Amino acid sequence: MTTPHFAPPELEPGTLRVTPLGGLGEVGRNMTVYEIGGKLLVVDCGVLFPEETHPGVDLILPDISKIEERLGDIVAVVLTHGHEDHIGGVPYLLKRREDIPLVGSKLTLAFVAAKLKEHRIRPVLREVAEGDRLDYGPFDLEFIAVNHSIPDALAVAIRTEAGLVIGTGDFKMDQLPLDKRITDLRAFARLGEEGVDLFMTDSTNADVPGFTPLEKDIGPVLERVIAGSTGKVVVASFSSHVHRVQQVLDAAQANGRRVVLLGRSMVRNMKIASDLGYLEVPEGVLVDLKKSGDIPDHRIVYMSTGSQGEPMAVLSRMANREHQVEIGEGDTVILASSLIPGNENSVYRVINGLMKLGANVVHKGNAKVHVSGHAAAGELLYCYNIVRPKNVMPIHGEYRHLVANAGLAIETGVPQNRTIIGENGTVVDLKDGVARQVGQLDIDFIYVDGSSVGKVTDDDLRDRRVLAEEGFISVITVVETSLGQIVSGPEIHAKGVAEADHVFDKIKPQIADALEQAMREGVVDHHQLQQIVRRTIGRWVGTKLRRKAMIVPVVVVV
Amino acid sequence: MTTPHFAPPELEPGTLRVTPLGGLGEVGRNMTVYEIGGKLLVVDCGVLFPEETHPGVDLILPDISKIEERLGDIVAVVLTHGHEDHIGGVPYLLKRREDIPLVGSKLTLAFVAAKLKEHRIRPVLREVAEGDRLDYGPFDLEFIAVNHSIPDALAVAIRTEAGLVIGTGDFKMDQLPLDKRITDLRAFARLGEEGVDLFMTDSTNADVPGFTPLEKDIGPVLERVIAGSTGKVVVASFSSHVHRVQQVLDAAQANGRRVVLLGRSMVRNMKIASDLGYLEVPEGVLVDLKKSGDIPDHRIVYMSTGSQGEPMAVLSRMANREHQVEIGEGDTVILASSLIPGNENSVYRVINGLMKLGANVVHKGNAKVHVSGHAAAGELLYCYNIVRPKNVMPIHGEYRHLVANAGLAIETGVPQNRTIIGENGTVVDLKDGVARQVGQLDIDFIYVDGSSVGKVTDDDLRDRRVLAEEGFISVITVVETSLGQIVSGPEIHAKGVAEADHVFDKIKPQIADALEQAMREGVVDHHQLQQIVRRTIGRWVGTKLRRKAMIVPVVVVV
Repeated sequence: MTTPHFAPPELEPGTLRVTPLGGLGEVGRNMTVYEIGGKLLVVDCGVLFPEETHPGVDLILPDISKIEERLGDIVAVVLTHGHEDHIGGVPYLLKRREDIPLVGSKLTLAFVAAKLKEHRIRPVLREVAEGDRLDYGPFDLEFIAVNHSIPDALAVAIRTEAGLVIGTGDFKMDQLPLDKRITDLRAFARLGEEGVDLFMTDSTNADVPGFTPLEKDIGPVLERVIAGSTGKVVVASFSSHVHRVQQVLDAAQANGRRVVLLGRSMVRNMKIASDLGYLEVPEGVLVDLKKSGDIPDHRIVYMSTGSQGEPMAVLSRMANREHQVEIGEGDTVILASSLIPGNENSVYRVINGLMKLGANVVHKGNAKVHVSGHAAAGELLYCYNIVRPKNVMPIHGEYRHLVANAGLAIETGVPQNRTIIGENGTVVDLKDGVARQVGQLDIDFIYVDGSSVGKVTDDDLRDRRVLAEEGFISVITVVETSLGQIVSGPEIHAKGVAEADHVFDKIKPQIADALEQAMREGVVDHHQLQQIVRRTIGRWVGTKLRRKAMIVPVVVVV
Repeated sequence: MTTPHFAPPELEPGTLRVTPLGGLGEVGRNMTVYEIGGKLLVVDCGVLFPEETHPGVDLILPDISKIEERLGDIVAVVLTHGHEDHIGGVPYLLKRREDIPLVGSKLTLAFVAAKLKEHRIRPVLREVAEGDRLDYGPFDLEFIAVNHSIPDALAVAIRTEAGLVIGTGDFKMDQLPLDKRITDLRAFARLGEEGVDLFMTDSTNADVPGFTPLEKDIGPVLERVIAGSTGKVVVASFSSHVHRVQQVLDAAQANGRRVVLLGRSMVRNMKIASDLGYLEVPEGVLVDLKKSGDIPDHRIVYMSTGSQGEPMAVLSRMANREHQVEIGEGDTVILASSLIPGNENSVYRVINGLMKLGANVVHKGNAKVHVSGHAAAGELLYCYNIVRPKNVMPIHGEYRHLVANAGLAIETGVPQNRTIIGENGTVVDLKDGVARQVGQLDIDFIYVDGSSVGKVTDDDLRDRRVLAEEGFISVITVVETSLGQIVSGPEIHAKGVAEADHVFDKIKPQIADALEQAMREGVVDHHQLQQIVRRTIGRWVGTKLRRKAMIVPVVVVV
């Protein structure tokens, strides 16, 4: 379904080239590369969490292989905020060149530094704040405050001799945010007056009509639910959602409850956020799990990970009674989180499990305990009207989101032919106030699978899917070709095939006959003999058993 | 998470025993068994469509093994309506005893007969209609009209000497249905006056507040969308949703368009529905795909299957350009269907694909083109107040739905201790107006996998999951134990492991050493030698490669 590859022309002096290597046509692995005057600027380098079509894969990276030859030309990586889909790929990029400067806000850099420490990478960090302006080679960068579901997010304005580009990163326009740090529309307006040549903005909620509700409206709901609970309360949310956790801490305190943080990433991130002043922990509210044993159930709130039903996270383990915090009759569990498409089965499995244990489960389906972190259509219209960009390329989203976002730009007066619905690998050149597509790269998935990066091939994944659906049948035969005799076998091992072992006894004589006949006819090559085995058993499995299991024939010649 | 097994006591004379064998704690494979006086009545026998935790499985059946020994005692199978989750298991039950009478409405029996014909089963059919009353052994059955997302659905009232039970099947209470066949609340009221001892009702939407909107309100929306379309229109929906198709036919005719039915099940079901008078095909509207070549795009509507993103159905094939109907710029696709949890990724993949081809995609997220077929909370409250049952056991739904449904019963005055939240295998005895749980059977999944039924074991599924996540490594060695020598190998084959073949060269000498040493120590049994290979390579793969691939060691002794 992707556009066929066409090579971009050589980049002309004075032209800015923009190439997204991830995040378009998907939700995750955001990364965009800007090039001018022989230098590259990277904005974001995130990961994508794989779907069921990528069995066994842990993470998917942007196609960093496309800049493999140009690592020395990268002047900096700008990180717009601290979410995994924007920073998760940084260790894999820095493993290729460790001293690429990382530019971001205080909290963003703290999150990425913690991650890099686990990978034993010592990064070069350059902290910036909204209003800061600094040069990296031919790129003149200015940072603008935006709000999102993590504090300290920044949009970046990139000035080059080819013009002015704004990338918003992920953002929304909460007008009464908890930290009072509003998305700086006055800066957007000022840049708009200067003239924005290319505007690249978050499409995630572009097909959602209206406006994202206020984060602060969740607090009172949490407080009411906690006030009405007689037993333990567990709240699950994203482990980087500082403001959500803040509201849980406040609601707990208002109800005379103490809070235990559960889950490695929750504990780590909230330590960072409170050390840096982003999370205000009310005096004496937090208590360590180990020291919480004496606190009665109605005096405690557990703040945990696992809101997406991840099988190894705290909430799933509670639902399976595999966690030391035991859920029972009278307890309340609040999923203060979104339900990311694709996770429905896992999340409902956890909800059903918790309910079977007797818990009252509150989630966004039955109470206002979550708001999104992304601007809805109404907010994006404000943006376009304030910025009045000359050219638009929506980013961050599936194709349907990009189309919806482009539609909003057009409704505010951006000409349709100045609106680029790109995909990963779309090469856009900006010159003289005109952005246009000049090429299309083939973008690959770079897989992280166990300890290896990029080694899972599409063939491996296809094999895994076949193995998952049908299992495999291996047939081992030892032959002495000089005598034309079978020395041992055929021995058949089947795994995942859903047939009893003795079923295969019927086909063994046929395999033996086929091999002996081939040897009589002078076939001695074990590859050829293996093909004969494959054909013989493959035909039988297909017609008699009606299965398509993977066939692994092994003929050992002695 | 399931309740531990406890055996029910022997069934006493005059007591009715009710045992759901599927459909509780899940959405699908509905089946309930009623027993009194040594005879069994079965209500519904559906299938469940498997999730990703059941790789390669085509269907899951109710646990019919629980009545395997009692097949001769079954007096009839009542089928409440023609959906797969209520009739899909019938062929597998009838393969065990072909002459069990099937009792249902005209349309339901026509759908099940078509299915049985494909399985070459000649069933005994007994057609009934609302108001009919007939005896099967100790069971006195009465049928009540209900409406749902398929015509001709029936609730069943079951009178025995132990009392009166009503099972609603799937239903809603559309007060202005297309076919004017309303859910017969007057019959419910009459039965309520007589005294309903046990009421078992559809829980699917019990956690949805309010009322399901009217089916007929979709028609005008479809008509407007079609009127505003300049190219082809494709409408996708469930292939048994006769009234939805009716509205598409009417909307097409109103816009001067002809309709092509696409998809084997759509063509077959609509032929049945129109032959029997459930679908009124406007004169000259339908046209065969083969004869539609000359009709211009703006004069045609394709009515297709695939609304859940099923990869082999028409809509997915269109999105992948693998269907002869080509979607392009200016065409409109309407998904007039629900989005069943778990299908989100597949459906969005199809939507993105169609949009990339240039189509305008209309779905329930952006237009009112679907209403549910199940009663929401508001409707269920009416039911409970009209029937005033003595005992309640919610059916058809995940645990969270059953709990919500029980909550509604309790709010209308059913005592909490007369409200049974059961699961599959819960054995309930009804006597003297009191229903109570007397046992819990262990309920298995019966899998249909290719041509075999029930042969996929949990071990097979576990193997498949491991193979999907990690692949396998087989190690073949031929040894001559008398000489203590390796004759050939070790030869290593890896599939889906995401490692290059040469990686395994490093471990071969260690395997050879381990085998030779074992043989020197007198080990000659090939099972023991295989265990040595497994340990040697398993440890290395785990620590060096950090993988958990399935290890298949084969030692051939010659």
